[in-house]
Amino acid sequence: MTGHPMPETPQQPIIDGATRLYVIIGDPVAQVKSPGVYNARFAEAGMNTVFVPAHVPSDRFDETMRGIMNLGNLDGLMITVPFKAHMMRLVDRVLPMGAKVGAINAARREADGSWTGDMFDGTGLIRGLKNRSISMTGRKVMLVGAGGGGSAVAVAVADAGASHVSIHDADQAKAAALAERVKAACPACIVNHGAVSFEGRDTFINATPIGMSPGDGTPVPLKGLRPDMLVIDIIMKPEVTPLLAAAQALGCQTVGGRAMLEGQAVEVAEFYRIGKPA
Amino acid sequence: MTGHPMPETPQQPIIDGATRLYVIIGDPVAQVKSPGVYNARFAEAGMNTVFVPAHVPSDRFDETMRGIMNLGNLDGLMITVPFKAHMMRLVDRVLPMGAKVGAINAARREADGSWTGDMFDGTGLIRGLKNRSISMTGRKVMLVGAGGGGSAVAVAVADAGASHVSIHDADQAKAAALAERVKAACPACIVNHGAVSFEGRDTFINATPIGMSPGDGTPVPLKGLRPDMLVIDIIMKPEVTPLLAAAQALGCQTVGGRAMLEGQAVEVAEFYRIGKPA
Repeated sequence: MTGHPMPETPQQPIIDGATRLYVIIGDPVAQVKSPGVYNARFAEAGMNTVFVPAHVPSDRFDETMRGIMNLGNLDGLMITVPFKAHMMRLVDRVLPMGAKVGAINAARREADGSWTGDMFDGTGLIRGLKNRSISMTGRKVMLVGAGGGGSAVAVAVADAGASHVSIHDADQAKAAALAERVKAACPACIVNHGAVSFEGRDTFINATPIGMSPGDGTPVPLKGLRPDMLVIDIIMKPEVTPLLAAAQALGCQTVGGRAMLEGQAVEVAEFYRIGKPA
Repeated sequence: MTGHPMPETPQQPIIDGATRLYVIIGDPVAQVKSPGVYNARFAEAGMNTVFVPAHVPSDRFDETMRGIMNLGNLDGLMITVPFKAHMMRLVDRVLPMGAKVGAINAARREADGSWTGDMFDGTGLIRGLKNRSISMTGRKVMLVGAGGGGSAVAVAVADAGASHVSIHDADQAKAAALAERVKAACPACIVNHGAVSFEGRDTFINATPIGMSPGDGTPVPLKGLRPDMLVIDIIMKPEVTPLLAAAQALGCQTVGGRAMLEGQAVEVAEFYRIGKPA
């Protein structure tokens, strides 16, 4: 070993006075991985633009965002928990997927100074699946977890052509509300909610956090899961959750959270127009 | 040539979700050099902290700063034109030099969340001179330019022990006001203002922008300038202004703007406690 090899492309742009900013806002924000993802892309594209985290206090969200969005060299935002729904109010327009989900996770400043927002949590998964040659068209999906991630995934799955979506959440009112939202967004999709059943389903998606913590089991009992089913877990870490391990043991095709992360990076880079004239 | 050599220390920290922020605010801000200066120091100190420029619109200064200063991962600010005087109102305490000058160019967040500001434009020059073994003690100074830079320099020069300070500005009221400020800050120093005269002076300082633009001459006629005088120009670019060229031709000792820049970087790094526990 004679030291670290020089990377072929710089990992991030060199910052000077003319550097443009992208900011990820969250409370907390220390856990996010997006600065590394987008700074590498800015550097590759030769853009003098840097992506930094901003810890926005939840109790002063509006005041803080008014200040940040005034900055003349701010070109984009990424939005994480707990601001994805609130942030919709602060942009000038919301693209169709964001409007259907009722939340946004990215916003860009247009040439005229106005802000456009959209939601890529679900479409990122669809893109990641597409990169693995998996299509949602005609699929009959059982989804568990009707929180922020589950909402984005349910709408995107229906929007991508799933014929049936069943939604389950420990909080039944949340499951019912999400079912209504998916129906409104995609009238052609047959949507229901309530009990977990794998009968007549070919796809199972976990959008709960169950499986992240050591000692976690599967999000629901897997009785009835069949080897011909596709099993998707949006959890990033661990890479193989108890659900994925059990599904693999049964012989199912499985897809982990990395697919969503990678797919989302591609979708958001397009939305940010990285490497393209504005 | 086989490519660029790998720098011994990284030029700037690698940004992730836990990265802390320092922000330089200005309107405009694209011309500033400080991100390169402080990012190199953060990287050397092994701190996960990055220094970025923020273009704060002058007409929305208070609203914008309220937002920025709410950020939980913001540890420091640098302030450039036109905000150095206004920024004093937004910090919780101003250290003595900032109070004497009536403006601040750096602020840090303390462990209790409060903000402390101070002014390093003048003390940076004093530090830069000290690094060149030049002391201000007992000096009789003629200063031209009573704007922001001139104010910081006049107070710092008097504070560093100059026995006499004469101040000239094309705007006589500005010169008079600065003379009053220096007298109040340093009662032991003999201060006057009005006509330019090198008689009885051993030091001449230019704090006007005259000499920056191609075609500029010297800030004042140099009749009476003597080879035994020290001539200081705070202009950074060009490195040798018409004033410095004329003074060197006469045989004077000269000091250019780089001394102030380097001295200020050391002073501000200490103020920011870079590489030291907070």
